[in-house]
Amino acid sequence: MRDSSDKTPIWKAIANALRSDLAEGRYNPGDKLPTEATLADRFGVNRHTVRHGISVLVEEGLVRTRRGAGAFVAATPTDYPIGQRVRFHENLIAAGRRPEKRKLALDERAATIGEAQALQIEAGDPVCVYHGLSLADGQPVAVFESLFPLARLVGITTALKESSSVTEALSVVGIDDYTRASTRLTAVRATATHALLLHVAEGDPLLRSSNLNHCKDGLPVEYGRTWFAGDRVTLTLET
Amino acid sequence: MRDSSDKTPIWKAIANALRSDLAEGRYNPGDKLPTEATLADRFGVNRHTVRHGISVLVEEGLVRTRRGAGAFVAATPTDYPIGQRVRFHENLIAAGRRPEKRKLALDERAATIGEAQALQIEAGDPVCVYHGLSLADGQPVAVFESLFPLARLVGITTALKESSSVTEALSVVGIDDYTRASTRLTAVRATATHALLLHVAEGDPLLRSSNLNHCKDGLPVEYGRTWFAGDRVTLTLET
Repeated sequence: MRDSSDKTPIWKAIANALRSDLAEGRYNPGDKLPTEATLADRFGVNRHTVRHGISVLVEEGLVRTRRGAGAFVAATPTDYPIGQRVRFHENLIAAGRRPEKRKLALDERAATIGEAQALQIEAGDPVCVYHGLSLADGQPVAVFESLFPLARLVGITTALKESSSVTEALSVVGIDDYTRASTRLTAVRATATHALLLHVAEGDPLLRSSNLNHCKDGLPVEYGRTWFAGDRVTLTLET
Repeated sequence: MRDSSDKTPIWKAIANALRSDLAEGRYNPGDKLPTEATLADRFGVNRHTVRHGISVLVEEGLVRTRRGAGAFVAATPTDYPIGQRVRFHENLIAAGRRPEKRKLALDERAATIGEAQALQIEAGDPVCVYHGLSLADGQPVAVFESLFPLARLVGITTALKESSSVTEALSVVGIDDYTRASTRLTAVRATATHALLLHVAEGDPLLRSSNLNHCKDGLPVEYGRTWFAGDRVTLTLET
């Protein structure tokens, strides 16, 4: 980490390492961090540098310091299991967090070639687009964009106008059950729009998931893309 | 995308959108991209701006242009299924790519508190650390760091010195079978070291996976962390 090509200052590397420990789920809120002396030892630096690293996490709201008592974990990233079912609300409630979903926009437009391929419709066919924001305890954790094939789901736009729950809206148009057919994950830079909505900086790393939900007869009913704030969400997969 | 708070130039937004289409697996190498006129229409800009956006992907090696013929997909990100088994080589071969693994370092040290928790050993207990680089067709796609509990796997360091395959080395020390117990995924910034190894820029988005492999009797035998270049790898999860 310390050769001539390295542009990361050591205090930043310390902040990254500690943030990474938090993201790994190694701590619970309220846990005490190792002492400055221990961390100084671990990173081979002086206490001043350790303090600088910790101050970054304090600014980010992840850590709180109490004079004389040390540094404590203020918040830990939300664990978000991925699997057959889409259970954002249930997962957050199970983790002791308050989930919230905000509708940002709802409109109808023509599907692009890629979207049409995913939804098994023709390019240019009409789709309903639902843009939204997911929050945990009032903090934005993800921006999402869900596409619904209009010809297959007559009335879906009206149903989504009346409910922020996709499950409810799908039920209104006759889809009582649907399952996750595939999930694709990668890391991308936050665009200016994402940054604004997620309260992160433009260019910050986001975990992007794109997924396809099928109804019972195997036809796609929803093609969703979600951008998770990398610092705040860990997707977990228990096998 | 075009309000006053937006700092992403439109040509960059076009490059991002096209890169994202490639990452979604919507194109195969050799496929023709939509024409400049089509893209200009889609983004509501002039052809000059579209050309600027495409030139970014050409520089990144994702797209090639042929005078008079248009733009063609040169490379698409590697799909990497995640599941019960760790099958990097098999997956790449199935995708028609040439996999390669480079050993960067192999050493023994004391486990940190977090590592010890994951491996169900005591903090300070010795672990073997294997640092490596995974490549597909000669291009680096991931940096990894695998930890092995030394007391549980006597001789693992020597076995890893002789083979770059973890499966082979584990077999030498008596572990014939192991399975993925859990996977945790998030997005992080590339450090200077990661950037150097992966040929990306410092701060570029990486998909970080941390996973635990158990042997038949349920004890952890490997705690691995992998940093995938976001532009080059899509993790897929078929359910």
